[in-house]
Amino acid sequence: MATIIAVDTEDIRFPTSRELDGSDAMNPDPDYSAAYVVLRTDDPAVPDGHGFTFTIGRGNDVVCAAIRALAPLVVGSDVDGLVADLGEFGRRLTHDSQFRWLGPEKGVMHLAAAAIVNAAWDLAGKLAGKPVWRLLSDMSPEQIVDLVDWRYLTDALTPAEALDMLRDKVSGRPERIERLLAGGYPAYTTSPGWLGYDDEKVVRLAKQAVADGFTQIKLKVGADLADDVRRFKVAREAVGPDVPIAVDANQRWDVPDAIEWMAALAPYKPYWIEEPTSPDDILGHAAIRRGVAPVKVATGEHVQNRVVFKQLLQAQAVDIVQIDAARVGGVTENVAILLLAAKFGVPVCPHAGGVGLCELVCHLSMFDYVAVSGSLSGRVIEYVDHLHEHFVDPARIERGSYVAPTAPGYSAELLPASIATYRYPDGPAWR
Amino acid sequence: MATIIAVDTEDIRFPTSRELDGSDAMNPDPDYSAAYVVLRTDDPAVPDGHGFTFTIGRGNDVVCAAIRALAPLVVGSDVDGLVADLGEFGRRLTHDSQFRWLGPEKGVMHLAAAAIVNAAWDLAGKLAGKPVWRLLSDMSPEQIVDLVDWRYLTDALTPAEALDMLRDKVSGRPERIERLLAGGYPAYTTSPGWLGYDDEKVVRLAKQAVADGFTQIKLKVGADLADDVRRFKVAREAVGPDVPIAVDANQRWDVPDAIEWMAALAPYKPYWIEEPTSPDDILGHAAIRRGVAPVKVATGEHVQNRVVFKQLLQAQAVDIVQIDAARVGGVTENVAILLLAAKFGVPVCPHAGGVGLCELVCHLSMFDYVAVSGSLSGRVIEYVDHLHEHFVDPARIERGSYVAPTAPGYSAELLPASIATYRYPDGPAWR
Repeated sequence: MATIIAVDTEDIRFPTSRELDGSDAMNPDPDYSAAYVVLRTDDPAVPDGHGFTFTIGRGNDVVCAAIRALAPLVVGSDVDGLVADLGEFGRRLTHDSQFRWLGPEKGVMHLAAAAIVNAAWDLAGKLAGKPVWRLLSDMSPEQIVDLVDWRYLTDALTPAEALDMLRDKVSGRPERIERLLAGGYPAYTTSPGWLGYDDEKVVRLAKQAVADGFTQIKLKVGADLADDVRRFKVAREAVGPDVPIAVDANQRWDVPDAIEWMAALAPYKPYWIEEPTSPDDILGHAAIRRGVAPVKVATGEHVQNRVVFKQLLQAQAVDIVQIDAARVGGVTENVAILLLAAKFGVPVCPHAGGVGLCELVCHLSMFDYVAVSGSLSGRVIEYVDHLHEHFVDPARIERGSYVAPTAPGYSAELLPASIATYRYPDGPAWR
Repeated sequence: MATIIAVDTEDIRFPTSRELDGSDAMNPDPDYSAAYVVLRTDDPAVPDGHGFTFTIGRGNDVVCAAIRALAPLVVGSDVDGLVADLGEFGRRLTHDSQFRWLGPEKGVMHLAAAAIVNAAWDLAGKLAGKPVWRLLSDMSPEQIVDLVDWRYLTDALTPAEALDMLRDKVSGRPERIERLLAGGYPAYTTSPGWLGYDDEKVVRLAKQAVADGFTQIKLKVGADLADDVRRFKVAREAVGPDVPIAVDANQRWDVPDAIEWMAALAPYKPYWIEEPTSPDDILGHAAIRRGVAPVKVATGEHVQNRVVFKQLLQAQAVDIVQIDAARVGGVTENVAILLLAAKFGVPVCPHAGGVGLCELVCHLSMFDYVAVSGSLSGRVIEYVDHLHEHFVDPARIERGSYVAPTAPGYSAELLPASIATYRYPDGPAWR
């Protein structure tokens, strides 16, 4: 019987701001960072669990402090019990009455919980000898429903309804698993669209993306309207009239601004507008959606928890739910969000990029396809070609689709050399 | 020309869980705590600024870590420039692009920003020789509008509308200031209602509250329906049919539970139901409000920022806005929330209690009365008779009303002996 004996954490930062990779209208100079967790066990035959949450630099240390504060809730746990009831484990990290005051279930404490929960899923996958998407896809509907923290959800979705939805999809699971193993899961790419890139680079990367088999691209917008119109026009000319081009404002606008700005871009056919305004503004997204139709509204990478996703769906505020692997409470809370999205018939297209988000979200989308939504229609996972070389089991793209992971675990483990190099502030990349 | 040379922080915790003071259905054993900030200046003739945010124990250290992370944005600031543009100061603490990723404007980082902003207002009040409520009440409408971070608000309230509202109230300011100085601001008390108290104590304290001149009391509910009905009944009998009794569920319920529970309490005439469900659930509060009328719905102590308050008002989800002095971005963001509430005609009844929240919120309500809403109708400030003895300028109640503070500053300063005794984990109260 193995026990968790330590929750190690590392402040890992990549100096991405030096190249303007990842630059957008709200985040001009991100240093992509991970508050990284290793759940250590006392049995050499039992693997450690690796997980992280993603930040963009300053404050990554605060998240690491929050992880250390939560560690006493984890250390001493029996590994078998933990992996057998990951729903309880997630609730344990978010329901502590004193810590709860600091949220609840939002901001730094929830990012920290996400990192730990993700590490627990990595451990569970490794113990089961399965990638996390298969571990989830092999669970019974009852086991999946037990993962969810139902508090605050039952006015929109009850456990009984979720059970019915999941049972409906059981018989088709094997066929969908085969399809993923054979063809992967469709991706789109943001690599051409960072705001710090000049027009020539946008055109070159947009053409390259289409040549590489991506069926959708995305551009950052929101700093300067004239610039955005010009960049969108050259990108549209580069890829032709039929490739969907999404735009992403990274929360820069008030509601009236969003509607006005999108009217100016409309002639060039934007596919979706992502994060047009505050991630907290459910009613604002609903107003924008009414104002920019038929352009779709997408959001989620900064949506704090399942309660806000529930309302975005109830208010018909979004056409696309963009889950994030490491902002809400990790794999476990994302299961709840996938169920909510399926209930409301809204496709999930995860946010990715950053450090390691591509590695994680493909597990969630693949589980969604196999066991929850049962559909690939209108669904794509974001892909950004950065920093994958630091991972033991990096995300892989073939012909514009994510290859289904086969290694046991959650693909969250960083290479030891990368940890040593990018540790902040003492790693050689920062000294 | 004085400069801020340090942002000192202290982790102060009071072992209130030992007496079950402050116990409720969500928070069974809080240790009322302050992440305490002192802005130190380099000029002995210039006062230091004291401020804090409130937590209930575990995690107070994480907030202190966040304050230390934000300190480089503050250290080196010119004091005159800072107090002359407190709007800019608030935005500086929330708009840093890398820190913003950890929120935005919610959770630990926003609690930390609140502590620092509150300390800056304390400093500004001391420099001006005025209590903060007078400092605010003596500002021009233009200066007040400049305090607000208008991002994400303009679909509900524009700066021009706010200016008009404020100008309407200018001529009546002197009379309302006189009224506050003469009679104070009405209070209600939660002291009888903590969930850990037995019926005899509830009855005794409820009668005492009425004898002391309080015109409203509040009981905690939400753990056990039969207990709640019994306690409410004995409290109702103790105070008679006409004293409003509010109830507070501290987020324990889903939407359907809230409606059902309040139906069971209805025979005893609850005045408002506070925090019936998740503070993030705007649409849930709106559904509950429709389901429990004519009982009023109140929330706010856990509402993360002005964007969520805006929506609670837009969705007609609340009858009472309960601002908190130290969860949103301090004095500055509360000015925005007071303006929003006034625009929608909803009274503000602040959350208080904890450590020092009574000391702070009376400044905000008094400013609201003088310069924003211009009304006391339906407005009361919570009062809890705990821990005031630790403050240099403690909140004072006379005949059920808060006495208007007269000492310069924000009444946020703890006594040095209290800091030394309750410092966690090394103070004598904890060793």
